[in-house]
Amino acid sequence: MKNVAILGSTGSIGTQALDVCRAFPDQLRVLALAAGRNTDLLRAQVREFAPRCVFGEGLSRERPDWLGNARLCDMTEMVTAEEIDLVLVSTSGSVALRPVLAAIRAGKTVAVANKEVLVTAGEILTREARARDRRILPVDSEHSALLQCLAGEDARSVARIIITASGGPFRRFAAEQLTLVTPEQALKHPNWQMGRKVTIDSATLLNKGLEVIEARWLFDTPYERIDVVVHPESVVHGLVEFTDGSIKAHLGAPDMRIPIQYALSYPERWSNQTWPRLDLLAQGRLTFEPPDYGRFPCLALALEAGRKGGTYPAVLSSADEVAVELLLAGRIGFQDIPRLIEEALTAHHQDAHPSLEDIEAAQQWTYGFLRDRIAIKSTCGT
Amino acid sequence: MKNVAILGSTGSIGTQALDVCRAFPDQLRVLALAAGRNTDLLRAQVREFAPRCVFGEGLSRERPDWLGNARLCDMTEMVTAEEIDLVLVSTSGSVALRPVLAAIRAGKTVAVANKEVLVTAGEILTREARARDRRILPVDSEHSALLQCLAGEDARSVARIIITASGGPFRRFAAEQLTLVTPEQALKHPNWQMGRKVTIDSATLLNKGLEVIEARWLFDTPYERIDVVVHPESVVHGLVEFTDGSIKAHLGAPDMRIPIQYALSYPERWSNQTWPRLDLLAQGRLTFEPPDYGRFPCLALALEAGRKGGTYPAVLSSADEVAVELLLAGRIGFQDIPRLIEEALTAHHQDAHPSLEDIEAAQQWTYGFLRDRIAIKSTCGT
Repeated sequence: MKNVAILGSTGSIGTQALDVCRAFPDQLRVLALAAGRNTDLLRAQVREFAPRCVFGEGLSRERPDWLGNARLCDMTEMVTAEEIDLVLVSTSGSVALRPVLAAIRAGKTVAVANKEVLVTAGEILTREARARDRRILPVDSEHSALLQCLAGEDARSVARIIITASGGPFRRFAAEQLTLVTPEQALKHPNWQMGRKVTIDSATLLNKGLEVIEARWLFDTPYERIDVVVHPESVVHGLVEFTDGSIKAHLGAPDMRIPIQYALSYPERWSNQTWPRLDLLAQGRLTFEPPDYGRFPCLALALEAGRKGGTYPAVLSSADEVAVELLLAGRIGFQDIPRLIEEALTAHHQDAHPSLEDIEAAQQWTYGFLRDRIAIKSTCGT
Repeated sequence: MKNVAILGSTGSIGTQALDVCRAFPDQLRVLALAAGRNTDLLRAQVREFAPRCVFGEGLSRERPDWLGNARLCDMTEMVTAEEIDLVLVSTSGSVALRPVLAAIRAGKTVAVANKEVLVTAGEILTREARARDRRILPVDSEHSALLQCLAGEDARSVARIIITASGGPFRRFAAEQLTLVTPEQALKHPNWQMGRKVTIDSATLLNKGLEVIEARWLFDTPYERIDVVVHPESVVHGLVEFTDGSIKAHLGAPDMRIPIQYALSYPERWSNQTWPRLDLLAQGRLTFEPPDYGRFPCLALALEAGRKGGTYPAVLSSADEVAVELLLAGRIGFQDIPRLIEEALTAHHQDAHPSLEDIEAAQQWTYGFLRDRIAIKSTCGT
């Protein structure tokens, strides 16, 4: 039995993680739930799972009755509690950064679905985990695929890791078409049901760049040995090429509950007939093509920010956060996203070996920088 | 350093195994070579590798000068010698059956490229290996793929294993076309360079049936959990589906030296830039389709023989041996192969729990039965 804390329980990954917990009541016990402002759903989850600790951004100081026996506590308190074995981090943004670090330092197994946490502070977090002989478990289908391909293999035998990208809804769009796409079009992902932010990031391919940065830290692999391949069917989630010429791939139906379950069951596998299964014969065909860095400049920007390291990935991630919000608000166009990110990266003065405070400062700098840029643009019409 | 004996050193797999030995002089030492009648090549190999023991079917009792310091010995003596660590079995037919059993009983690691050995006596051989906490290592690309997909996984998590088949040169042939194909056409495999027997077996798909029987024993997996999928590109060599819905696949360039090297390096991997590498982007597309049991009855016959067990697989294998010889001699047509095999299987009285002697007797019975059938057919013109 693993005692689990879920940070971000009302989001897309959080609710699917609770599906997994529901399917394995003898293996997983939900002891702590943290959510944002979706208090209605949090209340329903608290009623169903009766956790010991609850955090909700939308909760007032006054303790609501429906908490029952649960304590209100902050996320750091929640994840470092003695009885917690595993912390699943599926919050959005950087809100979980410090709780994650605290959980790692407390020796907890941490499974990370949140991209920002590893993109901005992957170096620090993986160093802290390694110092305690722990590994941070991935939840993303791509990184879960890589972890599974690496099972039973010596890390020194790895020649290259390959992350697949669906290519998003605009894979076949010409450059000029891309300038005209609407947020509604960008929110329609061909294969996956996901949150709004990650869906837009999939359309720009920035998401794939973030995943490369995550992979760099999760698997301690230099950037020159990480490749991105476009695979529109989203059936092969990741591949590892070994030094002897063998390649191992992970395939599965595009359903997040499969990699979420693997993170929760790791290093075991638990039998489950509930989630959809991949039928290779029904699928029939798998295709692979190189990504187009010209039409999707976000991918190249992300890889460059990753290679430069330091605070650049934090600036990349925060600039994208602002840009996606502006897109969804109808204030900028689709191809303004890479433009804003590039402006922020160009203007940023990097800190090569940042502390967590430096990373947070770089994020704040980015928010301020882009607010000013947008304000100037709105005023001057440039 | 592993001390290696190679049975069948002058054949297709044997010579490629020696390529691997040549590439890893610090890891592999060739201490014993056994060959059939290709004495010229055996002589060249003995000169190059200076083994301690040599066996050649084509060698007279008189010791040739070129043996140098090597001893002439039989295969059983060779593989059970104290200094041997690993025995690679790449002979054709059943000639290596008893030496393989002797090697297993002597606690040697045995890597088997020869299909007949595991098809006819897989139950006995794997039982003997298991009793010594050893596993028989596969050399075939398909079984090597499965072994690699199973690395680091619990056998109880395996839901299904999937063996891929290229479909052979006649994948798109109509049933009536198949009756007219020549041995020359059948000898042209689209993807692999192999020996004549296995190339014909690939064209009939009998080869894939034999591989299912091998997989049943190598991976202790019941037939109902082994599937065959046609994959014309021969890039995905095998897949394992786990009980949690994940699938792992092994991919590689269609070059036998990659799986041969894995068998010799197992459980390690050795870095090698020499063999061709798979370029997924150049490949671009992978396709999968169900096998057509109607046009390729050999596959169904093999699966049925496997399921019935006992001496049936030995009859299947021996009947095919005779049939392929007759095809290559121009004495029967392509679709007479399944017909002869079916006749032998139908006429055979099975031994459910055969000893090695019973298996050999079933093989001899098959040779005799088919010789008589062919003689009758030649005489009566039926």
